Amino acid sequence: MNVWRVNVRTQTLSQEPVPKTWQRLGGRGLLARILLDEVPPTCDPLGPNNKLIFAPGLLVGHMLSSCDRISVGAKSPLTKGIKESNAGGRTGLQLAHLGIKALILEGHRAESGWWVLHLSADGARFERAGDLVGLGVYETASRLIERYGSKVAIALIGPGGEMRMSAAGIQNLDKDRQPSRINARGGLGAVMATKGLKAIVIDASGGKKPPIAHLDRFRQAQRVYIKALVSHPQTKIYSDYGTAAMVPMCNGFGGLPTRNFSAGQFEGADRISGETMRKLLLQRDGEAKTTHACMAGCAIHCSNTFADAQGHAVVSPLEYETIGMTGSNLGIDDLDIIARINREINDLGLDSIEIGATLGVAAEAGLMDFGDGKRALELISEIRQGTPLGRLLGSGAAVTGRVLGVERVPVVKGQAMSAYDPRAIKGTGVTYATSPQGADHTSGLTIRAKVDHLDAKGKVELSRGAQINAAGYDTLGVCAFAGFGFSVAPETIRDLLNARYDWQVGDDILQQLGRETLTLEREFNRRAGFTAADDRLPEWMTREPLPPNNAVFDVPEEELDRLFNW
Amino acid sequence: MNVWRVNVRTQTLSQEPVPKTWQRLGGRGLLARILLDEVPPTCDPLGPNNKLIFAPGLLVGHMLSSCDRISVGAKSPLTKGIKESNAGGRTGLQLAHLGIKALILEGHRAESGWWVLHLSADGARFERAGDLVGLGVYETASRLIERYGSKVAIALIGPGGEMRMSAAGIQNLDKDRQPSRINARGGLGAVMATKGLKAIVIDASGGKKPPIAHLDRFRQAQRVYIKALVSHPQTKIYSDYGTAAMVPMCNGFGGLPTRNFSAGQFEGADRISGETMRKLLLQRDGEAKTTHACMAGCAIHCSNTFADAQGHAVVSPLEYETIGMTGSNLGIDDLDIIARINREINDLGLDSIEIGATLGVAAEAGLMDFGDGKRALELISEIRQGTPLGRLLGSGAAVTGRVLGVERVPVVKGQAMSAYDPRAIKGTGVTYATSPQGADHTSGLTIRAKVDHLDAKGKVELSRGAQINAAGYDTLGVCAFAGFGFSVAPETIRDLLNARYDWQVGDDILQQLGRETLTLEREFNRRAGFTAADDRLPEWMTREPLPPNNAVFDVPEEELDRLFNW
Repeated sequence: MNVWRVNVRTQTLSQEPVPKTWQRLGGRGLLARILLDEVPPTCDPLGPNNKLIFAPGLLVGHMLSSCDRISVGAKSPLTKGIKESNAGGRTGLQLAHLGIKALILEGHRAESGWWVLHLSADGARFERAGDLVGLGVYETASRLIERYGSKVAIALIGPGGEMRMSAAGIQNLDKDRQPSRINARGGLGAVMATKGLKAIVIDASGGKKPPIAHLDRFRQAQRVYIKALVSHPQTKIYSDYGTAAMVPMCNGFGGLPTRNFSAGQFEGADRISGETMRKLLLQRDGEAKTTHACMAGCAIHCSNTFADAQGHAVVSPLEYETIGMTGSNLGIDDLDIIARINREINDLGLDSIEIGATLGVAAEAGLMDFGDGKRALELISEIRQGTPLGRLLGSGAAVTGRVLGVERVPVVKGQAMSAYDPRAIKGTGVTYATSPQGADHTSGLTIRAKVDHLDAKGKVELSRGAQINAAGYDTLGVCAFAGFGFSVAPETIRDLLNARYDWQVGDDILQQLGRETLTLEREFNRRAGFTAADDRLPEWMTREPLPPNNAVFDVPEEELDRLFNW
Repeated sequence: MNVWRVNVRTQTLSQEPVPKTWQRLGGRGLLARILLDEVPPTCDPLGPNNKLIFAPGLLVGHMLSSCDRISVGAKSPLTKGIKESNAGGRTGLQLAHLGIKALILEGHRAESGWWVLHLSADGARFERAGDLVGLGVYETASRLIERYGSKVAIALIGPGGEMRMSAAGIQNLDKDRQPSRINARGGLGAVMATKGLKAIVIDASGGKKPPIAHLDRFRQAQRVYIKALVSHPQTKIYSDYGTAAMVPMCNGFGGLPTRNFSAGQFEGADRISGETMRKLLLQRDGEAKTTHACMAGCAIHCSNTFADAQGHAVVSPLEYETIGMTGSNLGIDDLDIIARINREINDLGLDSIEIGATLGVAAEAGLMDFGDGKRALELISEIRQGTPLGRLLGSGAAVTGRVLGVERVPVVKGQAMSAYDPRAIKGTGVTYATSPQGADHTSGLTIRAKVDHLDAKGKVELSRGAQINAAGYDTLGVCAFAGFGFSVAPETIRDLLNARYDWQVGDDILQQLGRETLTLEREFNRRAGFTAADDRLPEWMTREPLPPNNAVFDVPEEELDRLFNW
């Protein structure tokens, strides 16, 4: 494998050997290494010195269930710190099949105008994308598929990205050609826009699977892992209900964000639960699907296709985070409305967590009534039109709260929390506070631990373990839910890596990778100017009790500051 | 003298002796000491843990020419760091006459609604201010004068402050009852709003001048100082032309911000110069005044009253910074329009530097054409209406640039630069970069030094000296222009302090106070999370050449980081 470096100003590709210190890493860990090596941490995230990097994880390329994720990174225009956001779909697999360890996009486009970057075994070429400007994600994807065939992988941005909004992500085709797998968080779509790229098309038809040093041992480890994964009870739950299975769980803990984080239980929780959604989708014919895989080979199938009463697909997938942030968090208890909101946000190429939080803040400021889905859609339409209000909302919750004069803004390091109120799920609160990524549940979710989530005690240790594991999985290119299998058969991580690369890593390789990744990320942020003062939840969450448990966030700051002392 | 501590929640006053470590300080230095002692540096600036503090400088209270300024401070909602902003007018003098060393406003108002805080020899009382809500600064001041008499001092906020905009300041009556002396920078008006105060009325009629330990020695030093001041050539220039005398000078150096800092010379500079203004005002009858003092006893009279063609006062004063930031920076070359813009910004209680910079950014984003004063007034009217666009503009240049997707945003630490482009006046650029206050010319202006302003060499030393002196003057309560006198007779600072307080300070007391103040401010910012990464000009200014000299900002970062090593 090698590094593909594309200068978007000169529109040239150089294919380079992988430097020694990069070889042992992939995905999130590799991004951290490259960003630290090549990007000035104090640079303007939307200026020419930032780089946008795509890196498949270490296990990507083999259609190993739930292990083909693509990590994308840059200095974040949202948090102003390091950013990695990973997604499923096809992009990781096809980059790996082209032998690309990392794709580094650098420079500022020379001329204004928009481009498609086409990558194949023949190298890179730039094609004009003027006809795609302003188009939504769905229409853009469909035109690109028409132009480049249905087998390519595509990573693209929507109008939100084009407008360089801080809430803009990068959408990837899933295995069924839906542009629905999003590197959502931290404004990576805005960085892609500064590189002049509306889309990256990856045609791996001339490529091949990455080599495996010891195929038998790889297959053996794969069998053990898959068996552990499919026999895990959580896998079945996610197959049946998708991530929406989380609604009653989080609501039960009093941690379901409700009306801009003013309460932790939602009276309409039953109407937006996984069970309700499953029943609804089973009733509906046509394109409705209760279960669906985003990546080829995935045994979990946590995805779904939400269809309307006529059976027409509205959005795929409809996930817990979106249900929480644009449902209960906005006081909306109607899955059909939530699905439409989700589709619109997707079509703009925006992060539904950030936009859900932002609309909650906007509602608090009086721009909509909680529960008014029609008004929520109008506000999203302002974003599409690029009005000053729309641009404000597209800038995310922190900026919106500041401009509208709202104190109750659920952000850390400028990034919105996801659908777990940290006052009720305190381990995840510690993750929000301390993760180098900003508030991000995927950096170390703790809700499944069998602990008293309301008790501050022990939550730093809990979050530390979760953050290390998450950073490790993100470096492997492994879905968080693959952890259902790896947690039962942890030795298979070691065995898969040793078989794939002819390495001799030990049992704690996941934690080793995780710790290394977090250390690199912390160092980037330190150089960017972050301090302990940034590792804090918003002050009001330490003061304002969350009903029904009337909990505040009370993990001591001194403990937060010890999280990375390992 | 003592400390008056007002809890706005309980509406109670406690009068406390001045702690020992506070006694040697006043004004800006005292604010830094109090903020460090009492305000958690990581607190939400608009939350209940922030405090708003008024502190007259050490020499305030004696109608010594140009030495009665009032410093106001808090953690800034604009920069998120320490903030001191000082102003002329009556407030400092009357606080000193009530024996108030520092007025500390703390807590969050208990009930919503607005109040007038009335201070007199009888103590403090709160009076309802519901009838003043939403009123502009001019109408509010006029009603308060009607209610409380024409001899009181008043510090008040406008609609911008009420809306808690980050560009909101606090307006003080001048000696002629104009509410025109503004603690402009850093959003102090928004902090005052969180305390529920529309105005503070200070009635010093039952008070008295602060005691002077050695009156003869004080009078003697005063005579020497005044003589030095009035015989300084700059004093005459400022008396004739006001600060607008700076227009041709800064334009000559190629540092006059033009069309959002895209050029350093303005083809319309002659039409907005001090000379042009003086001629115009001499032609106009009625209320026009070419020269005017903001504080009783001032020998400089740099202020003026700009009147329209019919002789009706439009705004007083019209100053260089406003002319630069809302004139050349917006491509506007008509003093009548600039004066109207200035009046509107004043009436909203906003900082004309911040709003000028913000409108420049908005013009860059296409919300107005450069040169279109009518459109500029429309945008300011959006602020008054509190529309989402208006709230955005009222949040300042940094946030506006971020939301509107503009790269060329002239800010440091979130605060807009004033009317000296740092690429052409590099010493002032060093001040912008490194001052704990954010970009702020009053923290260390270097334009009068006889050096090559385009050469990066020696500018850290130049800025260091200027910053130390500025922090010293701000601690004394002394106007920057009083420096014309003190620079010729520096020993009078020592003599005035020793005579006033029975101290035995030495020749370098100004620098001692300045260094101590800067050290305290840096420490507050350090605890708030600031690092060297915050001591930088925006990246684009290191890259984008400024016509006509095609200069970039090239003072090395390592040198910037050594500024505070003394």
